[in-house]
Amino acid sequence: MHTPTLTWQDDALVIVDQTRLPTEKVLVRLTSADDVFRAIRSMQVRGAPAIGIAAAFGVYLGVRDVATADRQVFLAAVDVVANRLVSARPTAVNLAWALERQRRTLSRHPQASVPELKQLLLAEAQSMIQEDNAVCLAIGRHGAELLRPGMGILTHCNAGGLGTARYGTALAPIYVAKARGIDVHVYADETRPVLQGARLTAWELKEAGVPVTLICDNMAAVVMQRGWVQAVIVGTDRVARNGDVANKIGTYGLAVLAKAHSIPFYVAAPRSSIDLAIASGAEIPIEERDPREVTEGMGRKIAPDGVHVFNPAFDVTPAELVTAFITEVGLVKPPFEQELARIMDLPGPDPKATPPL
Amino acid sequence: MHTPTLTWQDDALVIVDQTRLPTEKVLVRLTSADDVFRAIRSMQVRGAPAIGIAAAFGVYLGVRDVATADRQVFLAAVDVVANRLVSARPTAVNLAWALERQRRTLSRHPQASVPELKQLLLAEAQSMIQEDNAVCLAIGRHGAELLRPGMGILTHCNAGGLGTARYGTALAPIYVAKARGIDVHVYADETRPVLQGARLTAWELKEAGVPVTLICDNMAAVVMQRGWVQAVIVGTDRVARNGDVANKIGTYGLAVLAKAHSIPFYVAAPRSSIDLAIASGAEIPIEERDPREVTEGMGRKIAPDGVHVFNPAFDVTPAELVTAFITEVGLVKPPFEQELARIMDLPGPDPKATPPL
Repeated sequence: MHTPTLTWQDDALVIVDQTRLPTEKVLVRLTSADDVFRAIRSMQVRGAPAIGIAAAFGVYLGVRDVATADRQVFLAAVDVVANRLVSARPTAVNLAWALERQRRTLSRHPQASVPELKQLLLAEAQSMIQEDNAVCLAIGRHGAELLRPGMGILTHCNAGGLGTARYGTALAPIYVAKARGIDVHVYADETRPVLQGARLTAWELKEAGVPVTLICDNMAAVVMQRGWVQAVIVGTDRVARNGDVANKIGTYGLAVLAKAHSIPFYVAAPRSSIDLAIASGAEIPIEERDPREVTEGMGRKIAPDGVHVFNPAFDVTPAELVTAFITEVGLVKPPFEQELARIMDLPGPDPKATPPL
Repeated sequence: MHTPTLTWQDDALVIVDQTRLPTEKVLVRLTSADDVFRAIRSMQVRGAPAIGIAAAFGVYLGVRDVATADRQVFLAAVDVVANRLVSARPTAVNLAWALERQRRTLSRHPQASVPELKQLLLAEAQSMIQEDNAVCLAIGRHGAELLRPGMGILTHCNAGGLGTARYGTALAPIYVAKARGIDVHVYADETRPVLQGARLTAWELKEAGVPVTLICDNMAAVVMQRGWVQAVIVGTDRVARNGDVANKIGTYGLAVLAKAHSIPFYVAAPRSSIDLAIASGAEIPIEERDPREVTEGMGRKIAPDGVHVFNPAFDVTPAELVTAFITEVGLVKPPFEQELARIMDLPGPDPKATPPL
């Protein structure tokens, strides 16, 4: 496996700078909430689970030097920091989920002093790394049941180790299968405009020794037409109560193509990305990003000056195109509204009892 | 309209170098068959109709200095030059079509001297520019009947003026509609890996004053999902007898998406791109190009060293996904096998009687 995506070392959150991959592996030390905000915003750290964890550390970094003994003043400071962090990227629910967890941690300790509260925030963020590893490995075990030797798996964007603390969501089943001696072949969409598939997925699969073929997004249909793909597995930034899926732009088109080719379409979804508070994908805010990601994001200008660009970072795949969700508590099949609600209360994998890959 | 894509000036074929657009408009003088071969191979000139015309000039340039008075020796030299030119790109039928036209021109004049044969080759190539303009404008008039004010039209790659002598195939209906006061909005797929949509289609539509929004290929599905597109119009490199369509990679996926969204899918096809000699798309050779177009084609390296890449330049769209062909003799609807054969013998538009746009 590759270097952990994020680790806590010497009072700083250390991340692999994903804007520098695949040509350079650069570690960056984040020592303030502003550092974390900028790293999330610029996609030095990205992927719904990873930005949730990064933001949890960001809360701690943002308040560790607040000089007050007054709990209410301290909680107000936490709110200011958390509200800023949640605005870094609007689509992923994990960001809000992680920050809410930090708030709940503080509520559970009404008698704690401010120095104690600071340590609780740090400990909670650290435990989120352990939990993420346990959750990803559980997703991997459940997803690996779907894989057979020689299968072709198409994936989009990077829902791999680089999008989580270490093991990934959509790629976890492939890593678990490999550890069990089941080799599959991965087709990685390059994923315009930011090229997470080319830069990150192809890189981490090569690092892990998984056979991978890189394609442009518009080649996915032909790869399916030729019969090379037996399953699509993608990650998600947010799942609505009815099973609608927000994920990287291009996911919806893939789901339509998979259906047209009778290929199952799986969404690897830790429960932290399931948002029962929203009824459908229509309520998920879709981030539109800078047009320059399209017109000059690859090192040279590729479009005429002043051309109008539509650059949504995500799209919404209707639930009816999803074959099943792969969660840490098992596969979830339709009816999604009922089944997603049911699994939210099941006990999750125990981080202390999770063997490594 | 933009500068003509190719013109004959001062004993040379002058082309707009399409590898330099959109940042620079550079004219290149081609003075030998080798120049023409390299320009086609490197896509300085591209688009099925344009490369056909360029190759026709290439034959003349390749033999104009052949010093013989012997007709058979001269014809053998023509064959050598033509065979090399046809190998520059294997998928488009226009290349073979144009070269075959040059051979037939010579056959029609069994008594002509070698100097006369040379002039006949040049005259035939020049007449192909006039015919191409007449054909494209006729496609434009027939296609414009499908357009209504305010419609959104999605196109892929560049089947515009830059892919023909001047007026384009898939974009001709939009130019004709504009000249008639019917404004539509075009969504241009950037068209990875070589970005003809971003570099060429967006550029020529802006030059012509047509409203255009540039999108990444993987955004086409969302633009359809949102109801912004009422028709897809693409060009083609070769149409088989049964109506299967070879066109730029990504076209097949678009056709599947269009069907899933109940959007009509039109293929603008001059009859020179219809190849009744092949029964179906399975017989069309699909060019696979250099993986570096994917991994470093945009100015910087975007994938890890040594990653395996699949880079087909074209795909084949099955006839059943095509709503109609827009040809210079009118719309062609199913049954395609019968209708495509029927239109091949109809009289074409008269170049001398074609008014300009």
